[in-house]
Amino acid sequence: MTLSPPFIVSAPGKVIIFGEHAAVFGKPAIAAAVSLRTYLLVTPSDSKDEIILDFPDIGLYQSWKSSELPWDVAEKYQQGKPQPTDELVPEIVSEIAKLLTDLDKTIFYAAASSFLYLYVNLCSRHSEGLRFTVRSTLPIGAGLGSSASISVCLTSALSLLGNHIKPAFLKKDDLTSDNEDSLFIDSWAYMGEKCIHGNPSGIDNAVATHGGAVMFQRMQSSIPSVRTTMRNFPPLKLLLTNTRQPRRTAELVSNVSRLTNEFPKTSSNILDAIEALTREAYNIMIRPFFDEAARNRLRELFQINHGLLIALGVSHPTLERARMLTDEMNVGKTKLTGAGGGGCAITLLNDQVEDEIMKNLKLKYEELGYETYETSLGGKGVGFLPFNNDVSFNPENFKQKTSNEIEISLGAQNDGWKFW
Amino acid sequence: MTLSPPFIVSAPGKVIIFGEHAAVFGKPAIAAAVSLRTYLLVTPSDSKDEIILDFPDIGLYQSWKSSELPWDVAEKYQQGKPQPTDELVPEIVSEIAKLLTDLDKTIFYAAASSFLYLYVNLCSRHSEGLRFTVRSTLPIGAGLGSSASISVCLTSALSLLGNHIKPAFLKKDDLTSDNEDSLFIDSWAYMGEKCIHGNPSGIDNAVATHGGAVMFQRMQSSIPSVRTTMRNFPPLKLLLTNTRQPRRTAELVSNVSRLTNEFPKTSSNILDAIEALTREAYNIMIRPFFDEAARNRLRELFQINHGLLIALGVSHPTLERARMLTDEMNVGKTKLTGAGGGGCAITLLNDQVEDEIMKNLKLKYEELGYETYETSLGGKGVGFLPFNNDVSFNPENFKQKTSNEIEISLGAQNDGWKFW
Repeated sequence: MTLSPPFIVSAPGKVIIFGEHAAVFGKPAIAAAVSLRTYLLVTPSDSKDEIILDFPDIGLYQSWKSSELPWDVAEKYQQGKPQPTDELVPEIVSEIAKLLTDLDKTIFYAAASSFLYLYVNLCSRHSEGLRFTVRSTLPIGAGLGSSASISVCLTSALSLLGNHIKPAFLKKDDLTSDNEDSLFIDSWAYMGEKCIHGNPSGIDNAVATHGGAVMFQRMQSSIPSVRTTMRNFPPLKLLLTNTRQPRRTAELVSNVSRLTNEFPKTSSNILDAIEALTREAYNIMIRPFFDEAARNRLRELFQINHGLLIALGVSHPTLERARMLTDEMNVGKTKLTGAGGGGCAITLLNDQVEDEIMKNLKLKYEELGYETYETSLGGKGVGFLPFNNDVSFNPENFKQKTSNEIEISLGAQNDGWKFW
Repeated sequence: MTLSPPFIVSAPGKVIIFGEHAAVFGKPAIAAAVSLRTYLLVTPSDSKDEIILDFPDIGLYQSWKSSELPWDVAEKYQQGKPQPTDELVPEIVSEIAKLLTDLDKTIFYAAASSFLYLYVNLCSRHSEGLRFTVRSTLPIGAGLGSSASISVCLTSALSLLGNHIKPAFLKKDDLTSDNEDSLFIDSWAYMGEKCIHGNPSGIDNAVATHGGAVMFQRMQSSIPSVRTTMRNFPPLKLLLTNTRQPRRTAELVSNVSRLTNEFPKTSSNILDAIEALTREAYNIMIRPFFDEAARNRLRELFQINHGLLIALGVSHPTLERARMLTDEMNVGKTKLTGAGGGGCAITLLNDQVEDEIMKNLKLKYEELGYETYETSLGGKGVGFLPFNNDVSFNPENFKQKTSNEIEISLGAQNDGWKFW
């Protein structure tokens, strides 16, 4: 095992499981990792001066000359181990912008600027030429933290390459515990998120780094969010359903805000109920024993939370249709996740669901044009897969995989090995 | 116009529009009259000693000899104008039971015992022989107050025949204001309800008597419920949908009770939210001006209340299907009414709904096996239709009508006149 390329890094996406919308009003919310992950393959590029970002899921392929990156500016801000700043450094951002003038899509620009910002902060002008190939099994832009999982992958790889995290970190089976290295990744991934989202909550990168689940609460704007990571939370079977109904998050948020003006007492009671159930869920999730009764309670809280979100007016007929089917077929409890008004629904599946029924349900969703992902809630954060030097690895194989599970052929001796 | 038969009395059914389930926990709830009504035709019977109760909707046809009724016992309790007692008089109940030994269905027994209890209390052994033909456009036993509307019809007719209410009462166009006569009817109809339900809330008979809407709140068992009648509330277009999914009211109520034990804080916030929205609705409904904005707010409160009922776990896929269709077709806001878990949904229709869309919706409901009733919320309480003596009226015509609107032919000069 070496620290030099080729290697793969992976990080999970997230779903908000309790407290969305109420979070805007300072209530706690819980986000949890899902087993849908982003994978980053780092391989040498053809030339020492060539850096390639290859992100086939969105059709982005871009290369830069390392020598043209704004090293002088970046080095002004870094002395010793790189420290993330409160805000992005405008000077670096504007220098990077000059390298991105030919990127005509917002998503390309966001991905590339985030990548280069992390690159010049975490690597050096002496780094070798590399190719970064990103693959995600997460739907992009569906509120599932795809950008944070990418940011965590990039940060982890670049931190490894820049020697900012210890090799020992890679060897641990459980990478989800708080330590200097994981906190370093989390904090820099947050900077990557800032390049994309401006003012992200920091939850998505926390979940993508640490795995498990995170309870968070926004305080007054000057005070950072309170975060509690739940790492003992065992993986639960989750069906994630993307209704593909486009959402208008800002509109939904402002509608809830209108409701709190129009019906202040009713709304405040509803928000209090969401807070109460979120804390209830937290108390269930941190228990050392997570038995069937606990899972049932969590399912019931899914139902309660969803009802309250309907009361807040943020559901949508496509989500209700998704929920109705799982209720009728008795496979589990379903709630919307995130902004609502379309987007994704999540079903906390019953402990026992017959394959036939599951197949039937997924068929019905397909007929409605929904995408389903059988995944699990909770689970591991960032992970590394270093290769032995004798393994020849072709990035094109990595790119061409289109299934939900990326299977990485490591040659005869490791054929079919699946990476988390 | 005379007070002697034949005449017709009618009274409305009710729906709970806000606060069901929370009412069990001492929160206020609002019930409103619906334009689906029960009609009672009183005609002379063939013999002076013959009293007939004819209720074709449930297949009940029963006759008694007036001379065999327990007059001696009843007269012991009545001196001058009959006064309802706190509880049913056991002596009268048991005497009546002896006359009902051949009634093999609970519903027959309930209807007949209620009728005879009111008859011996409100009429006298000297009353002429009469036939009471009951027709209801309300689904029976669907939580829509059919029994109370029948009880109010019977009480009104018997009070008229017993000369306990003033003839002037009949002439008023608006019979819904509080006065001695309407309170007399309300209180005796409650006794009739007691024969059927044991310990009714008294809301159904209040709405059936006074019309409009009633806000009520259960106090400690020793204190009577608080009731506020809203009579200025203008009729609103309502679509009533009977899913025909059988409910288990007791099971649903006990499930909510389990929830309040399992998640006390969450549940209490939800119940508080229901209380707040019910009071909010009350404040909207008592306004002298009930404009479009007020109707929109009321519709929004339908949605909020339903979401909270989902959170309490008392909805059902059949109800969700009903709601989803009205949301998708954008015809109004839908909530369950009453116990939930099936039963009826009510849709407060938008001010403008195209006929074609409405037809389409009803067709879709039909395909699902649902029954729909286009009705209105609010509206008039008990009403009388006395006949001129020269009108010949055939009870069989009255019986055979099966449409939602009972059209009463009064002969050539009044052909097609519709009675409310």
